[in-house]
Amino acid sequence: MSSIGITAPAGFSAAALPAGIKASGNPDMALVVNNGPEYHAAGVFTRNRVVASPVKLTRRAVADGRLRAVLYNAGNANACNGVQGDRDADELQRRTADLLGMEPDDVAACSTGLIGELLPMDKLRDGVDRLAGDLGDHGHAAAEAIMTTDLVAKETWVEGDGWVIGGMGKGVGMMAPSLATMLVCLTTDASATPEMLDTALRAATKVTFDTLDIDGSTSTNDTVLLLASGASGVTPGQEELNDAVHEACSLLAAQMQADAEGVTKRVTITVEGTGDDGQALNAARTLGRDNLFKCAMFGSDPNWGRVLAAVGMADADMDPEHISVYFNGEAVCVDTTGTPGARDVDLSGVDIEVLVDLGTGGPGRATVRTTDLSHEYVEINSAYST
Amino acid sequence: MSSIGITAPAGFSAAALPAGIKASGNPDMALVVNNGPEYHAAGVFTRNRVVASPVKLTRRAVADGRLRAVLYNAGNANACNGVQGDRDADELQRRTADLLGMEPDDVAACSTGLIGELLPMDKLRDGVDRLAGDLGDHGHAAAEAIMTTDLVAKETWVEGDGWVIGGMGKGVGMMAPSLATMLVCLTTDASATPEMLDTALRAATKVTFDTLDIDGSTSTNDTVLLLASGASGVTPGQEELNDAVHEACSLLAAQMQADAEGVTKRVTITVEGTGDDGQALNAARTLGRDNLFKCAMFGSDPNWGRVLAAVGMADADMDPEHISVYFNGEAVCVDTTGTPGARDVDLSGVDIEVLVDLGTGGPGRATVRTTDLSHEYVEINSAYST
Repeated sequence: MSSIGITAPAGFSAAALPAGIKASGNPDMALVVNNGPEYHAAGVFTRNRVVASPVKLTRRAVADGRLRAVLYNAGNANACNGVQGDRDADELQRRTADLLGMEPDDVAACSTGLIGELLPMDKLRDGVDRLAGDLGDHGHAAAEAIMTTDLVAKETWVEGDGWVIGGMGKGVGMMAPSLATMLVCLTTDASATPEMLDTALRAATKVTFDTLDIDGSTSTNDTVLLLASGASGVTPGQEELNDAVHEACSLLAAQMQADAEGVTKRVTITVEGTGDDGQALNAARTLGRDNLFKCAMFGSDPNWGRVLAAVGMADADMDPEHISVYFNGEAVCVDTTGTPGARDVDLSGVDIEVLVDLGTGGPGRATVRTTDLSHEYVEINSAYST
Repeated sequence: MSSIGITAPAGFSAAALPAGIKASGNPDMALVVNNGPEYHAAGVFTRNRVVASPVKLTRRAVADGRLRAVLYNAGNANACNGVQGDRDADELQRRTADLLGMEPDDVAACSTGLIGELLPMDKLRDGVDRLAGDLGDHGHAAAEAIMTTDLVAKETWVEGDGWVIGGMGKGVGMMAPSLATMLVCLTTDASATPEMLDTALRAATKVTFDTLDIDGSTSTNDTVLLLASGASGVTPGQEELNDAVHEACSLLAAQMQADAEGVTKRVTITVEGTGDDGQALNAARTLGRDNLFKCAMFGSDPNWGRVLAAVGMADADMDPEHISVYFNGEAVCVDTTGTPGARDVDLSGVDIEVLVDLGTGGPGRATVRTTDLSHEYVEINSAYST
């Protein structure tokens, strides 16, 4: 059994292989199977209203709180392919289910890659057939197969009291969201109801993947799944489960942040002093998406005026005359007025902490992680599909 | 009398000079005076809640629908300077009023430049004194004095039936909004009530300056003023006034778009097929602010998948299975599915037209003008304040 990753928990097997979808010839398909005795599952999906065919399929499949297998492919998102895209996803679901002796509705599918190209179905059919015959302790190979522009495979492992969670993820979500659908698969040998899994997964993603916020672009394919085999025979309490799922998501999110392409700065934005946490999140996101602020971070420029100009447009309670801004713990603006020496604060390091107090004295507080806007970002994203 | 610009209408004079605020030594202060017989005025301001001291002052001054003079300076925004910033703006207002024999409340002020630096008051006091003694037919000099990163002065002129509107503006609003506060001054010799002026100005700015949308960054200083002297003795109808003010604003907005720095593409986005015009505007703005879409435009890449991924996140009614996208009039996506040859559409020209039909059959329609996201944008905006 693997020490980390999706095949670390008892009751899971996986397979991975190169099916020829990626031009590079690298592995690009993976299959994850829950061998039971329980098949409980929960899923969280993109909030984009334009969703890929596999997202539609997987939403339906997991609606009953039960999944036995997940088919992954990289190199093609099967998004915006119309009725043919839906048919292709359904055919692969049925084929996988037939080979594994399951109901089609117990098989989910996740795809990542270019939007608007039909799946090369001959390659995928052949891939499914071979994956079904090669299931084993191949969690790491699966984590490698779902990579697109990721530079490293992302895996994690969290130990509970007599049970464990394993996980894999892909996505360099901070820099290139449309290259970088975020796919995450968590597996656990805990015994937990679908409701427990759903509660834990929603709580965890809200404060981990959902706050890895770059430019508001949200993929058509983002999918986070949590599968529970019950093979440990242990039923954790809801809080214990919540904590472990949160830790697993945090660890994967940190790996995604660390792997962000084109990044020269990792910027952590905390907003406080506003009405509630939701307002604080609005303001932190507004700042994290402001190109002028992000360009200033790229230039190591302590241009706090751009922070005020950005948060001033946010949907959050604020006292416009009493906003304070701190860069790396140093006050650069107090009561909406620059401090002496504010422009001399050193932002030359890779990590920059920004704290904004909106001055109302309210209890709202939230943190968002973002990056700078670099030449490399423009380079990577101006020459993708062609 | 000038043929175009703010001193073209009867009843207006202006002055401009270098006061030493700009490091370049270029002209950086201007004064516009309405010599009557009427002093009616209207103003439209930034929606940012963090506003510069001159914006606070001018909002108060124009609240009674009356202004006799406007003091301009470039090189320093007098924003986020706390109580001292307010005091400085008030002092310059009083000084101008005293010199011109007006009430302080009849004098407005507009500033543009770096945020968070106190005004060099000795230079501005001296500048005010000299401006007051040099009033004349100097509309063009005033238009030059309010430039910051603008490459050309922006002036306009619209003829009514026995009356005219003149105007000047500054702002390369499409590319570098924090460099580029948008300041506009319109003057007219028409006789119109403050209510008529306000109605015309709000209607015009809503579909001109407000749709020149780049990245959602909105300056702390944006101010558009309309002053009416009544010197022509002609009172236009409301619709006639609306049309002329709209034309003047359109002409200045087009000059701002043409002067945008760092732009390699001018992108016009139209959204239709949604619930109402407001929803269409939301979707057009969402697309116009999407960095991945903007990078694709920079790369002349007909990556319509990014259009769908972006509009899918917009607050607008849509039929996610029946969205269509056209680049330069060619259908690249119909019913949320790529067309054959979609990736071969030629986007190599400077102007790109994007049409998105959200597929609901609803009457909503709106257009937003934006630009690509280029290396030069990053360059300009990462090395500004330091």
